[in-house]
Amino acid sequence: MNQSKSRVSIVGAGPGDPELLTIKAYRTIKSADVILYDALVSEEILQLAPDDAQKIYVGKRSSDHAYAQDEINEMMVSNALLYGHVVRLKGGDPFVFGRGGEEMQYVRSAGIDVEIIPGISSSIGVPGSVGIPVTHRGLSESFWVLTATDKKGNLARDIQKASETETTVVVLMGLGKLALIVDLYIKQGKADLPVAIIQNGTMANQKVVTGSIADIYNTSIIEKIGAPAIIIIGEVVSLYQPAELIQKYQTVLA
Amino acid sequence: MNQSKSRVSIVGAGPGDPELLTIKAYRTIKSADVILYDALVSEEILQLAPDDAQKIYVGKRSSDHAYAQDEINEMMVSNALLYGHVVRLKGGDPFVFGRGGEEMQYVRSAGIDVEIIPGISSSIGVPGSVGIPVTHRGLSESFWVLTATDKKGNLARDIQKASETETTVVVLMGLGKLALIVDLYIKQGKADLPVAIIQNGTMANQKVVTGSIADIYNTSIIEKIGAPAIIIIGEVVSLYQPAELIQKYQTVLA
Repeated sequence: MNQSKSRVSIVGAGPGDPELLTIKAYRTIKSADVILYDALVSEEILQLAPDDAQKIYVGKRSSDHAYAQDEINEMMVSNALLYGHVVRLKGGDPFVFGRGGEEMQYVRSAGIDVEIIPGISSSIGVPGSVGIPVTHRGLSESFWVLTATDKKGNLARDIQKASETETTVVVLMGLGKLALIVDLYIKQGKADLPVAIIQNGTMANQKVVTGSIADIYNTSIIEKIGAPAIIIIGEVVSLYQPAELIQKYQTVLA
Repeated sequence: MNQSKSRVSIVGAGPGDPELLTIKAYRTIKSADVILYDALVSEEILQLAPDDAQKIYVGKRSSDHAYAQDEINEMMVSNALLYGHVVRLKGGDPFVFGRGGEEMQYVRSAGIDVEIIPGISSSIGVPGSVGIPVTHRGLSESFWVLTATDKKGNLARDIQKASETETTVVVLMGLGKLALIVDLYIKQGKADLPVAIIQNGTMANQKVVTGSIADIYNTSIIEKIGAPAIIIIGEVVSLYQPAELIQKYQTVLA
């Protein structure tokens, strides 16, 4: 049993590229006694932990639930009491659809110190890394980040409202509802609106497809796009240039 | 004249706390020949640059424009051609109201390599750091990030639409329009909706005030809240607990 003070750090690990970890997250992981980590946290980031730290996988992805949320909550508290510093390591930012808020409340209600360390959210960092700005003068004055599915598994209502606006819409965990999302935008007369889907953003196996509302669903099938992926809908997507195109252009200029 | 290859990195420095810099941004700053930096980039982060790197302030804040955007664009290109690696260092994330997209386009059109390194956006990281999650099961299924002012200096139209939804609304650079924003929400019958304002988020001089739509404007005046500040509007703000309250609670439990 470790003598360090019981505490929990809820830490965002960023979108995948280990270099997109913050210095604060890096230092925090280095001082962990126990790490409770999710599916979207990369192996390179886990390897930063001290050799004697316990690393426990508590991820859940779709139907493959390793642990229920209640169990994760209880594991944070019991491990903090037993071993000292628990790092709850989550993909992206812990407060963007990460249930980090619930975890914070649970730890706090047990009388244990909890700190939140933000991470690069995929919603901004993944399109950003490939040159798609979520805001851009003359194209989009704001952006709206949503998940596609509500608590009951239906299409989230906010997507309907978002489709009626001019804002950049970023949908996380939305691939399974892509056809329904496309239908909403078609009903708004926005068949030509640009869309990008980025799978495994910022990682070596990243895949980007672009198109319009009219053709993106078929493209995603043809290109075999799978989860984890984010969907970006809006005029800002027109700024995207694949790396090979940029290369060609620079060769012409040179 | 440096012999390194001409290139530009557009880098997000995060909300202020130097520890919230990413490892990638850290390494990139370390290899800079020239740094063009904004007002919201902290002194500690600038000090990471090599001693022989040129550090040029190109910030603009409200009326105090050091350089026009055209000049900044041209400085990136000319410095890259003359000296090699230019790091364009911006507060928060470069693509969240940072005009990073325009800068990327300009550099690219000059035939110079440009990479984007995302940063922790204040919109997520600042409320997150104080324990306000932008999303939270049962309270908010999405969040919408806006600036308060449109190109002409008027209240941005998207804020009207956002006030009609249940989403968490995060307003950057909005303090000067707070009274108008409050009016919009009052007209929607949302006088009781929780609001937080965070000035100098994640920095030593951080200041947090909370209240409701009905009283937040007066509170912001009484507490002398000034820019830079972000405004968070939505039920998620009810999760905020000031540090001294948490302390008290833990004393009772102990």
